[in-house]
Amino acid sequence: MKIYDWPTGPYPARVRIALSEKNLQSCVQFETINLWKGEHKTASFLAKNYSGTLPVLELDDGTFLAECTAITEYLDALDGVPMLTGRTPREKGAIHMMSKRAELELLDAISVCFHHATPGLGPGVELYQNVEWGLRQRDRALRGMHYFDSVLRNQPFVAGATFSMADITVIGGLIFASLVDVPVPEECAALQTWYAKMQERASVRKQLALSS
Amino acid sequence: MKIYDWPTGPYPARVRIALSEKNLQSCVQFETINLWKGEHKTASFLAKNYSGTLPVLELDDGTFLAECTAITEYLDALDGVPMLTGRTPREKGAIHMMSKRAELELLDAISVCFHHATPGLGPGVELYQNVEWGLRQRDRALRGMHYFDSVLRNQPFVAGATFSMADITVIGGLIFASLVDVPVPEECAALQTWYAKMQERASVRKQLALSS
Repeated sequence: MKIYDWPTGPYPARVRIALSEKNLQSCVQFETINLWKGEHKTASFLAKNYSGTLPVLELDDGTFLAECTAITEYLDALDGVPMLTGRTPREKGAIHMMSKRAELELLDAISVCFHHATPGLGPGVELYQNVEWGLRQRDRALRGMHYFDSVLRNQPFVAGATFSMADITVIGGLIFASLVDVPVPEECAALQTWYAKMQERASVRKQLALSS
Repeated sequence: MKIYDWPTGPYPARVRIALSEKNLQSCVQFETINLWKGEHKTASFLAKNYSGTLPVLELDDGTFLAECTAITEYLDALDGVPMLTGRTPREKGAIHMMSKRAELELLDAISVCFHHATPGLGPGVELYQNVEWGLRQRDRALRGMHYFDSVLRNQPFVAGATFSMADITVIGGLIFASLVDVPVPEECAALQTWYAKMQERASVRKQLALSS
Protein backbone atom coordinates (compact mmCIF):
# COMPACT_ATOMS: atom_id res chain seq x y z
CA MET A 1 0.00 0.00 0.00
CA LYS A 2 1.06 3.56 -0.57
CA ILE A 3 0.09 6.73 1.28
CA TYR A 4 0.27 10.14 -0.32
CA ASP A 5 0.67 12.69 2.40
CA TRP A 6 2.56 15.57 3.93
CA PRO A 7 4.23 14.09 7.02
CA THR A 8 3.48 16.88 9.49
CA GLY A 9 -0.03 17.70 8.24
CA PRO A 10 -2.76 17.39 10.87
CA TYR A 11 -5.01 15.21 8.66
CA PRO A 12 -2.12 12.97 7.56
CA ALA A 13 -1.27 12.71 11.27
CA ARG A 14 -4.61 10.99 11.87
CA VAL A 15 -3.76 8.16 9.49
CA ARG A 16 -0.13 7.93 10.64
CA ILE A 17 -1.28 7.57 14.25
CA ALA A 18 -3.86 4.94 13.21
CA LEU A 19 -1.19 3.01 11.28
CA SER A 20 1.10 3.09 14.29
CA GLU A 21 -1.65 2.00 16.69
CA LYS A 22 -2.44 -0.92 14.35
CA ASN A 23 1.27 -1.68 13.87
CA LEU A 24 0.91 -1.41 10.11
CA GLN A 25 3.57 1.20 9.30
CA SER A 26 5.82 -1.38 7.67
CA CYS A 27 3.02 -2.29 5.20
CA VAL A 28 2.96 1.16 3.58
CA GLN A 29 5.26 3.35 1.54
CA PHE A 30 4.88 7.11 1.82
CA GLU A 31 4.98 9.56 -1.06
CA THR A 32 5.24 13.23 -0.17
CA ILE A 33 2.81 15.66 -1.77
CA ASN A 34 4.07 19.19 -1.15
CA LEU A 35 1.16 21.18 0.25
CA TRP A 36 3.11 24.45 0.17
CA LYS A 37 3.61 24.05 -3.57
CA GLY A 38 -0.07 23.17 -4.04
CA GLU A 39 0.74 19.70 -5.38
CA HIS A 40 -2.58 18.48 -3.90
CA LYS A 41 -4.46 20.77 -6.30
CA THR A 42 -2.84 19.54 -9.54
CA ALA A 43 -4.88 17.61 -12.11
CA SER A 44 -2.86 14.44 -11.54
CA PHE A 45 -3.56 14.51 -7.80
CA LEU A 46 -7.23 15.47 -8.23
CA ALA A 47 -7.59 12.32 -10.35
CA LYS A 48 -6.62 10.37 -7.21
CA ASN A 49 -8.84 12.39 -4.87
CA TYR A 50 -11.54 14.66 -6.30
CA SER A 51 -11.56 16.79 -3.14
CA GLY A 52 -7.84 17.54 -3.38
CA THR A 53 -7.05 16.72 0.23
CA LEU A 54 -4.41 14.64 1.97
CA PRO A 55 -3.92 11.87 2.90
CA VAL A 56 -4.85 9.33 0.23
CA LEU A 57 -4.25 5.59 0.55
CA GLU A 58 -3.55 3.65 -2.65
CA LEU A 59 -4.28 -0.06 -2.40
CA ASP A 60 -2.20 -2.63 -4.25
CA ASP A 61 -4.98 -3.01 -6.86
CA GLY A 62 -4.75 0.70 -7.69
CA THR A 63 -7.86 1.76 -5.74
CA PHE A 64 -7.56 5.18 -4.09
CA LEU A 65 -9.12 5.75 -0.68
CA ALA A 66 -9.38 9.32 0.57
CA GLU A 67 -10.87 10.78 3.77
CA CYS A 68 -9.31 9.91 7.13
CA THR A 69 -12.39 8.18 8.51
CA ALA A 70 -12.63 5.94 5.44
CA ILE A 71 -8.92 5.09 5.53
CA THR A 72 -9.12 4.35 9.25
CA GLU A 73 -12.16 2.09 8.70
CA TYR A 74 -10.20 0.24 6.01
CA LEU A 75 -7.05 -0.19 8.11
CA ASP A 76 -8.97 -1.11 11.24
CA ALA A 77 -10.90 -3.86 9.44
CA LEU A 78 -7.79 -5.39 7.80
CA ASP A 79 -6.94 -7.67 10.71
CA GLY A 80 -10.54 -8.37 11.68
CA VAL A 81 -9.79 -6.97 15.13
CA PRO A 82 -11.18 -3.43 15.10
CA MET A 83 -9.83 -1.44 17.99
CA LEU A 84 -10.18 2.10 16.62
CA THR A 85 -13.69 2.09 15.12
CA GLY A 86 -15.63 -0.06 17.58
CA ARG A 87 -16.86 -3.63 17.82
CA THR A 88 -20.48 -3.36 19.03
CA PRO A 89 -23.22 -1.23 17.41
CA ARG A 90 -23.09 1.14 20.38
CA GLU A 91 -19.30 1.52 20.19
CA LYS A 92 -19.40 2.09 16.43
CA GLY A 93 -22.12 4.70 16.80
CA ALA A 94 -20.40 6.56 19.64
CA ILE A 95 -16.97 6.56 17.96
CA HIS A 96 -18.32 7.77 14.61
CA MET A 97 -20.41 10.46 16.31
CA MET A 98 -17.54 11.79 18.40
CA SER A 99 -15.05 11.65 15.55
CA LYS A 100 -17.41 13.55 13.27
CA ARG A 101 -18.08 16.04 16.05
CA ALA A 102 -14.32 16.49 16.51
CA GLU A 103 -14.08 17.31 12.80
CA LEU A 104 -17.03 19.71 12.77
CA GLU A 105 -16.35 21.50 16.02
CA LEU A 106 -12.56 21.46 16.13
CA LEU A 107 -10.33 20.07 13.36
CA ASP A 108 -12.27 21.22 10.27
CA ALA A 109 -13.06 24.53 11.98
CA ILE A 110 -9.35 25.18 12.63
CA SER A 111 -8.55 24.14 9.06
CA VAL A 112 -11.00 26.71 7.69
CA CYS A 113 -9.50 29.30 10.02
CA PHE A 114 -6.00 28.48 8.67
CA HIS A 115 -7.02 28.61 5.00
CA HIS A 116 -9.26 31.68 5.29
CA ALA A 117 -8.19 33.85 8.22
CA THR A 118 -4.39 33.44 7.98
CA PRO A 119 -2.09 33.46 4.92
CA GLY A 120 -2.63 29.67 4.90
CA LEU A 121 -0.49 27.95 2.26
CA GLY A 122 0.28 31.28 0.58
CA PRO A 123 -1.26 33.28 -2.25
CA GLY A 124 -0.31 30.73 -4.92
CA VAL A 125 -2.46 28.05 -3.24
CA GLU A 126 -5.15 30.02 -1.37
CA LEU A 127 -6.98 31.35 -4.41
CA TYR A 128 -10.07 32.42 -2.46
CA GLN A 129 -10.27 33.50 1.16
CA ASN A 130 -13.24 34.52 3.29
CA VAL A 131 -11.67 36.05 6.39
CA GLU A 132 -14.93 36.61 8.26
CA TRP A 133 -15.89 32.95 7.83
CA GLY A 134 -12.40 31.88 8.92
CA LEU A 135 -12.62 33.92 12.12
CA ARG A 136 -16.08 32.49 12.93
CA GLN A 137 -14.63 29.02 12.59
CA ARG A 138 -11.75 29.88 14.93
CA ASP A 139 -14.34 30.88 17.54
CA ARG A 140 -16.23 27.64 16.87
CA ALA A 141 -13.04 25.64 17.49
CA LEU A 142 -12.48 27.43 20.79
CA ARG A 143 -16.03 26.55 21.86
CA GLY A 144 -15.29 23.01 20.66
CA MET A 145 -12.28 22.80 22.99
CA HIS A 146 -14.53 23.71 25.92
CA TYR A 147 -17.02 21.06 24.80
CA PHE A 148 -14.37 18.31 24.61
CA ASP A 149 -13.05 19.47 27.97
CA SER A 150 -16.52 18.90 29.44
CA VAL A 151 -16.64 15.42 27.88
CA LEU A 152 -13.22 14.48 29.23
CA ARG A 153 -14.15 15.59 32.73
CA ASN A 154 -16.47 12.57 32.85
CA GLN A 155 -14.71 9.85 30.86
CA PRO A 156 -11.10 8.90 30.06
CA PHE A 157 -11.37 8.96 26.27
CA VAL A 158 -13.33 11.02 23.75
CA ALA A 159 -15.84 8.29 22.88
CA GLY A 160 -15.95 6.56 26.27
CA ALA A 161 -13.86 3.97 28.08
CA THR A 162 -11.29 3.13 25.40
CA PHE A 163 -8.93 4.87 22.99
CA SER A 164 -10.47 5.19 19.51
CA MET A 165 -10.54 7.02 16.18
CA ALA A 166 -12.38 9.84 17.99
CA ASP A 167 -9.33 10.52 20.20
CA ILE A 168 -7.14 10.60 17.10
CA THR A 169 -9.42 13.18 15.47
CA VAL A 170 -9.25 15.46 18.52
CA ILE A 171 -5.45 15.02 18.55
CA GLY A 172 -5.42 16.12 14.87
CA GLY A 173 -7.46 19.14 15.90
CA LEU A 174 -5.04 20.11 18.65
CA ILE A 175 -2.04 19.60 16.35
CA PHE A 176 -3.63 21.98 13.83
CA ALA A 177 -4.69 24.44 16.55
CA SER A 178 -1.11 24.64 17.73
CA LEU A 179 0.10 25.40 14.17
CA VAL A 180 -2.48 28.19 13.86
CA ASP A 181 -1.60 29.48 17.32
CA VAL A 182 -4.98 28.80 18.90
CA PRO A 183 -3.84 27.11 22.11
CA VAL A 184 -6.09 25.11 24.40
CA PRO A 185 -7.50 27.59 26.95
CA GLU A 186 -5.98 27.25 30.41
CA GLU A 187 -9.35 26.60 32.01
CA CYS A 188 -9.74 23.42 29.91
CA ALA A 189 -7.84 21.34 32.45
CA ALA A 190 -9.40 18.00 31.57
CA LEU A 191 -8.59 18.46 27.87
CA GLN A 192 -5.01 19.44 28.79
CA THR A 193 -4.59 16.41 31.06
CA TRP A 194 -6.01 14.06 28.44
CA TYR A 195 -3.69 15.54 25.76
CA ALA A 196 -0.65 15.07 27.99
CA LYS A 197 -1.70 11.45 28.50
CA MET A 198 -2.19 10.97 24.75
CA GLN A 199 1.40 12.13 24.23
CA GLU A 200 2.57 9.19 26.33
CA ARG A 201 1.37 6.88 23.53
CA ALA A 202 4.19 5.93 21.15
CA SER A 203 1.98 6.59 18.11
CA VAL A 204 1.29 10.18 19.14
CA ARG A 205 4.77 10.92 20.47
CA LYS A 206 6.33 9.80 17.19
CA GLN A 207 3.97 11.99 15.18
CA LEU A 208 4.57 15.07 17.31
CA ALA A 209 8.34 14.54 17.06
CA LEU A 210 8.05 15.03 13.27
CA SER A 211 6.92 18.62 13.76
CA SER A 212 9.42 19.65 16.40
CA MET B 1 -35.44 3.65 20.38
CA LYS B 2 -36.53 7.18 19.65
CA ILE B 3 -35.58 9.49 16.80
CA TYR B 4 -35.76 13.25 17.10
CA ASP B 5 -36.18 14.68 13.64
CA TRP B 6 -38.09 16.82 11.18
CA PRO B 7 -39.74 14.33 8.83
CA THR B 8 -39.00 16.08 5.53
CA GLY B 9 -35.49 17.31 6.40
CA PRO B 10 -32.74 16.08 4.06
CA TYR B 11 -30.50 14.84 6.89
CA PRO B 12 -33.38 13.11 8.72
CA ALA B 13 -34.22 11.55 5.33
CA ARG B 14 -30.87 9.74 5.37
CA VAL B 15 -31.70 7.94 8.61
CA ARG B 16 -35.34 7.31 7.63
CA ILE B 17 -34.19 5.69 4.36
CA ALA B 18 -31.60 3.61 6.26
CA LEU B 19 -34.28 2.47 8.75
CA SER B 20 -36.56 1.49 5.92
CA GLU B 21 -33.80 -0.38 4.05
CA LYS B 22 -33.01 -2.27 7.27
CA ASN B 23 -36.71 -2.84 8.02
CA LEU B 24 -36.34 -1.25 11.43
CA GLN B 25 -39.02 1.47 11.26
CA SER B 26 -41.26 -0.38 13.71
CA CYS B 27 -38.47 -0.34 16.32
CA VAL B 28 -38.43 3.46 16.62
CA GLN B 29 -40.74 6.23 17.77
CA PHE B 30 -40.37 9.64 16.17
CA GLU B 31 -40.48 12.95 18.00
CA THR B 32 -40.75 16.06 15.86
CA ILE B 33 -38.33 18.92 16.50
CA ASN B 34 -39.61 21.99 14.68
CA LEU B 35 -36.72 23.37 12.66
CA TRP B 36 -38.67 26.45 11.59
CA LYS B 37 -39.19 27.40 15.22
CA GLY B 38 -35.50 26.76 15.96
CA GLU B 39 -36.29 23.99 18.45
CA HIS B 40 -32.96 22.35 17.49
CA LYS B 41 -31.10 25.35 18.93
CA THR B 42 -32.72 25.32 22.40
CA ALA B 43 -30.65 24.44 25.48
CA SER B 44 -32.66 21.27 26.06
CA PHE B 45 -31.96 20.01 22.55
CA LEU B 46 -28.29 21.07 22.61
CA ALA B 47 -27.91 18.88 25.69
CA LYS B 48 -28.89 15.94 23.45
CA ASN B 49 -26.67 17.01 20.55
CA TYR B 50 -23.98 19.64 21.08
CA SER B 51 -23.96 20.51 17.36
CA GLY B 52 -27.71 21.30 17.34
CA THR B 53 -28.48 19.24 14.25
CA LEU B 54 -31.10 16.67 13.36
CA PRO B 55 -31.57 13.73 13.47
CA VAL B 56 -30.64 12.31 16.87
CA LEU B 57 -31.22 8.70 17.89
CA GLU B 58 -31.94 8.01 21.57
CA LEU B 59 -31.18 4.46 22.65
CA ASP B 60 -33.24 2.70 25.29
CA ASP B 61 -30.47 3.28 27.87
CA GLY B 62 -30.72 7.05 27.33
CA THR B 63 -27.61 7.37 25.11
CA PHE B 64 -27.92 9.97 22.37
CA LEU B 65 -26.35 9.32 18.98
CA ALA B 66 -26.11 12.21 16.54
CA GLU B 67 -24.62 12.44 13.02
CA CYS B 68 -26.18 10.44 10.19
CA THR B 69 -23.07 8.34 9.51
CA ALA B 70 -22.83 7.34 13.17
CA ILE B 71 -26.55 6.50 13.39
CA THR B 72 -26.34 4.48 10.17
CA GLU B 73 -23.29 2.58 11.48
CA TYR B 74 -25.25 1.78 14.65
CA LEU B 75 -28.40 0.63 12.85
CA ASP B 76 -26.46 -1.33 10.25
CA ALA B 77 -24.54 -3.26 12.91
CA LEU B 78 -27.64 -4.12 14.98
CA ASP B 79 -28.48 -7.28 13.08
CA GLY B 80 -24.86 -8.27 12.41
CA VAL B 81 -25.63 -8.16 8.69
CA PRO B 82 -24.25 -4.84 7.46
CA MET B 83 -25.61 -4.01 4.04
CA LEU B 84 -25.27 -0.23 4.07
CA THR B 85 -21.76 0.32 5.49
CA GLY B 86 -19.81 -2.57 3.94
CA ARG B 87 -18.57 -5.97 4.98
CA THR B 88 -14.95 -6.14 3.76
CA PRO B 89 -12.22 -3.57 4.52
CA ARG B 90 -12.35 -2.39 0.89
CA GLU B 91 -16.15 -1.99 0.94
CA LYS B 92 -16.05 -0.13 4.25
CA GLY B 93 -13.32 2.19 2.96
CA ALA B 94 -15.06 2.92 -0.34
CA ILE B 95 -18.48 3.49 1.24
CA HIS B 96 -17.15 5.82 3.94
CA MET B 97 -15.08 7.74 1.40
CA MET B 98 -17.94 8.24 -1.03
CA SER B 99 -20.45 9.09 1.70
CA LYS B 100 -18.08 11.69 3.16
CA ARG B 101 -17.42 13.04 -0.33
CA ALA B 102 -21.17 13.28 -0.91
CA GLU B 103 -21.42 15.36 2.26
CA LEU B 104 -18.48 17.64 1.45
CA GLU B 105 -19.17 18.14 -2.23
CA LEU B 106 -22.97 18.07 -2.30
CA LEU B 107 -25.17 17.74 0.77
CA ASP B 108 -23.27 19.92 3.25
CA ALA B 109 -22.48 22.42 0.48
CA ILE B 110 -26.18 22.77 -0.35
CA SER B 111 -27.00 23.06 3.34
CA VAL B 112 -24.56 25.96 3.72
CA CYS B 113 -26.07 27.56 0.63
CA PHE B 114 -29.56 27.24 2.18
CA HIS B 115 -28.56 28.66 5.56
CA HIS B 116 -26.33 31.45 4.21
CA ALA B 117 -27.41 32.44 0.69
CA THR B 118 -31.20 32.12 1.09
CA PRO B 119 -33.51 33.21 3.93
CA GLY B 120 -32.97 29.67 5.29
CA LEU B 121 -35.09 28.99 8.36
CA GLY B 122 -35.88 32.69 8.75
CA PRO B 123 -34.34 35.59 10.70
CA GLY B 124 -35.29 34.15 14.09
CA VAL B 125 -33.12 31.06 13.48
CA GLU B 126 -30.43 32.25 11.04
CA LEU B 127 -28.61 34.57 13.41
CA TYR B 128 -25.53 34.89 11.20
CA GLN B 129 -25.31 34.62 7.43
CA ASN B 130 -22.35 34.84 5.07
CA VAL B 131 -23.92 35.16 1.63
CA GLU B 132 -20.67 35.02 -0.32
CA TRP B 133 -19.69 31.76 1.38
CA GLY B 134 -23.16 30.35 0.73
CA LEU B 135 -22.95 31.13 -2.97
CA ARG B 136 -19.49 29.55 -3.24
CA GLN B 137 -20.93 26.40 -1.68
CA ARG B 138 -23.81 26.36 -4.19
CA ASP B 139 -21.21 26.38 -6.97
CA ARG B 140 -19.31 23.60 -5.20
CA ALA B 141 -22.50 21.50 -5.06
CA LEU B 142 -23.06 22.01 -8.80
CA ARG B 143 -19.52 20.81 -9.49
CA GLY B 144 -20.23 17.92 -7.12
CA MET B 145 -23.23 16.90 -9.21
CA HIS B 146 -20.99 16.72 -12.28
CA TYR B 147 -18.50 14.64 -10.29
CA PHE B 148 -21.13 12.12 -9.14
CA ASP B 149 -22.45 12.02 -12.68
CA SER B 150 -18.99 10.97 -13.87
CA VAL B 151 -18.84 8.27 -11.17
CA LEU B 152 -22.28 6.89 -12.10
CA ARG B 153 -21.34 6.70 -15.77
CA ASN B 154 -19.02 3.85 -14.81
CA GLN B 155 -20.77 2.00 -11.99
CA PRO B 156 -24.37 1.38 -10.91
CA PHE B 157 -24.10 2.78 -7.38
CA VAL B 158 -22.16 5.60 -5.75
CA ALA B 159 -19.62 3.37 -3.98
CA GLY B 160 -19.52 0.54 -6.53
CA ALA B 161 -21.60 -2.52 -7.32
CA THR B 162 -24.16 -2.37 -4.50
CA PHE B 163 -26.53 0.11 -2.85
CA SER B 164 -24.99 1.64 0.28
CA MET B 165 -24.93 4.53 2.73
CA ALA B 166 -23.10 6.53 0.04
CA ASP B 167 -26.15 6.38 -2.25
CA ILE B 168 -28.33 7.54 0.63
CA THR B 169 -26.07 10.54 1.23
CA VAL B 170 -26.25 11.59 -2.43
CA ILE B 171 -30.05 11.16 -2.28
CA GLY B 172 -30.08 13.48 0.75
CA GLY B 173 -28.06 15.96 -1.28
CA LEU B 174 -30.49 15.88 -4.19
CA ILE B 175 -33.48 16.21 -1.87
CA PHE B 176 -31.90 19.33 -0.35
CA ALA B 177 -30.85 20.68 -3.76
CA SER B 178 -34.43 20.43 -4.93
CA LEU B 179 -35.65 22.39 -1.87
CA VAL B 180 -33.09 25.14 -2.57
CA ASP B 181 -33.98 25.10 -6.25
CA VAL B 182 -30.58 23.92 -7.50
CA PRO B 183 -31.72 21.20 -9.91
CA VAL B 184 -29.45 18.52 -11.35
CA PRO B 185 -28.04 19.96 -14.62
CA GLU B 186 -29.56 18.41 -17.74
CA GLU B 187 -26.19 17.23 -18.98
CA CYS B 188 -25.78 15.01 -15.88
CA ALA B 189 -27.68 12.16 -17.54
CA ALA B 190 -26.10 9.34 -15.53
CA LEU B 191 -26.93 11.09 -12.24
CA GLN B 192 -30.51 11.68 -13.44
CA THR B 193 -30.92 8.04 -14.49
CA TRP B 194 -29.49 6.77 -11.20
CA TYR B 195 -31.81 9.09 -9.21
CA ALA B 196 -34.85 7.86 -11.14
CA LYS B 197 -33.79 4.29 -10.32
CA MET B 198 -33.29 5.15 -6.65
CA GLN B 199 -36.88 6.42 -6.57
CA GLU B 200 -38.05 2.93 -7.48
CA ARG B 201 -36.83 1.75 -4.06
CA ALA B 202 -39.67 1.69 -1.50
CA SER B 203 -37.45 3.40 1.11
CA VAL B 204 -36.76 6.40 -1.13
CA ARG B 205 -40.25 6.61 -2.63
CA LYS B 206 -41.81 6.72 0.84
CA GLN B 207 -39.45 9.48 1.94
CA LEU B 208 -40.07 11.62 -1.14
CA ALA B 209 -43.85 11.19 -0.71
CA LEU B 210 -43.57 12.98 2.65
CA SER B 211 -42.45 16.18 0.93
CA SER B 212 -44.94 16.20 -1.92
